[in-house]
Amino acid sequence: MDVAAMHPAELRAVFRRNEWVRPTSGLARGFVQANLVVLKKDLAFDFLLFCVRNPKPCPVLDVTEPGSPVPRLVAPSADLRTDLPKYRIYRHGELVEETTDIRRHWAEDLVAFLLGCSFTFEQALLANGIPVRHIEENCNVPMYRTSIPCVPAGRFKGPMVVSMRPIPEKDVVRAVQVTSRFPAVHGAPVQIGNPEAIGIRDLNQPDFGDPVPVREGEVPVFWACGVTPQAVAMEVKPDFMITHAPGHMFITDLRDERFGVL
Amino acid sequence: MDVAAMHPAELRAVFRRNEWVRPTSGLARGFVQANLVVLKKDLAFDFLLFCVRNPKPCPVLDVTEPGSPVPRLVAPSADLRTDLPKYRIYRHGELVEETTDIRRHWAEDLVAFLLGCSFTFEQALLANGIPVRHIEENCNVPMYRTSIPCVPAGRFKGPMVVSMRPIPEKDVVRAVQVTSRFPAVHGAPVQIGNPEAIGIRDLNQPDFGDPVPVREGEVPVFWACGVTPQAVAMEVKPDFMITHAPGHMFITDLRDERFGVL
Repeated sequence: MDVAAMHPAELRAVFRRNEWVRPTSGLARGFVQANLVVLKKDLAFDFLLFCVRNPKPCPVLDVTEPGSPVPRLVAPSADLRTDLPKYRIYRHGELVEETTDIRRHWAEDLVAFLLGCSFTFEQALLANGIPVRHIEENCNVPMYRTSIPCVPAGRFKGPMVVSMRPIPEKDVVRAVQVTSRFPAVHGAPVQIGNPEAIGIRDLNQPDFGDPVPVREGEVPVFWACGVTPQAVAMEVKPDFMITHAPGHMFITDLRDERFGVL
Repeated sequence: MDVAAMHPAELRAVFRRNEWVRPTSGLARGFVQANLVVLKKDLAFDFLLFCVRNPKPCPVLDVTEPGSPVPRLVAPSADLRTDLPKYRIYRHGELVEETTDIRRHWAEDLVAFLLGCSFTFEQALLANGIPVRHIEENCNVPMYRTSIPCVPAGRFKGPMVVSMRPIPEKDVVRAVQVTSRFPAVHGAPVQIGNPEAIGIRDLNQPDFGDPVPVREGEVPVFWACGVTPQAVAMEVKPDFMITHAPGHMFITDLRDERFGVL
């Protein structure tokens, strides 16, 4: 299978048949991938409000009607209960199960949120000749809890989580320009070059993902990260929550460039 | 009073004392003004979802906690019950009252939505030397119901309303660029030059606002309009709804340039 060249709908069918239970990075190149958070309707307003108030870490791409597993805006032929390669089930904030199919967990009071992910702007960086270290190193991007508070909404509150990419000094301005074009998928960086300023003590000890080397002549650049809403939702310890398994994202029908604002 | 130079907080105090019961166009120049929609909490999730699904006509700037009249993101010192020059009260979809103070109507289950308005990008057009006809003519912008359907959400559905500005042919490209910088306040146009293509039969008969002349060498350019969410909310005929009176907007503490994405 040439998974980079396959169309999103074909890949979702492959996932549905459980023929690919691996991360989705590099698949359906050029198409937007999304984080999944599923909550009960009684938390949905507060969670949506949290996302709207914190658009950099929590860019909303689609929200389903209560009880519907169909993301009508971004992939009207998809079923969110089967079309991701792997899911995580949480009860009272505890991970209780990983699974490839959530049909037996589905209920009429569930609302699914699809949130933008950094794969889109990473492709834009690469297209501009700017290296992306964790792709080079074939590991996960390093992510850190910061001292930047998100704007709370109802029961949802907590710090922003950021991802870090070491950028060559000469490319920093271009990296800001390139990622600014994509506000719907985290957009411009939140910090350039000073991890302490946002409460990060040791770049070698990320809170999520893997550490990557920052080389001579490179600047650590920090972007708001889609792990933020999951981390915040976890803190609330909802009765019931489903997310994608880390790296096992939902692949939408929308092309990355659709989200370029200029 | 030099109302163009006054700070938003000063102006809101003036409105609170009912010393200015007139439209807010041209006031506190450089600061973002917003449309107000107040609904009961039981409709708030669907309405917020409608806005999130239709960001061009319904750009969300702030949403209050249920029962709170304080827009914490955009003007933490303000009180939305008193700080607009004039309000409209609707019951079951019918306008029942215009008032300068909604404290006696306020209740613990109300949620206030502040939505972006076109004043911000009009200032950007003017700053780029692009004329804005309805400002020149000192009338309201012409607005039209289109054949473009909004993406529905729960009970909320209906067509997009657009505003029209005649732009000199030589300035059309620049007008697209300038307004694209402000996706949080309607952003780029939705149509250039062909009203029939979006279901508008007669430019001289707007559905809202006033007609303006399109002169030789000018092209009618259409932008998504903040009247859309009000028109759609009205269709639902909610038990109870409050909006700003047309043109009598809420003035936030945020500067227009804050919303420029690049």
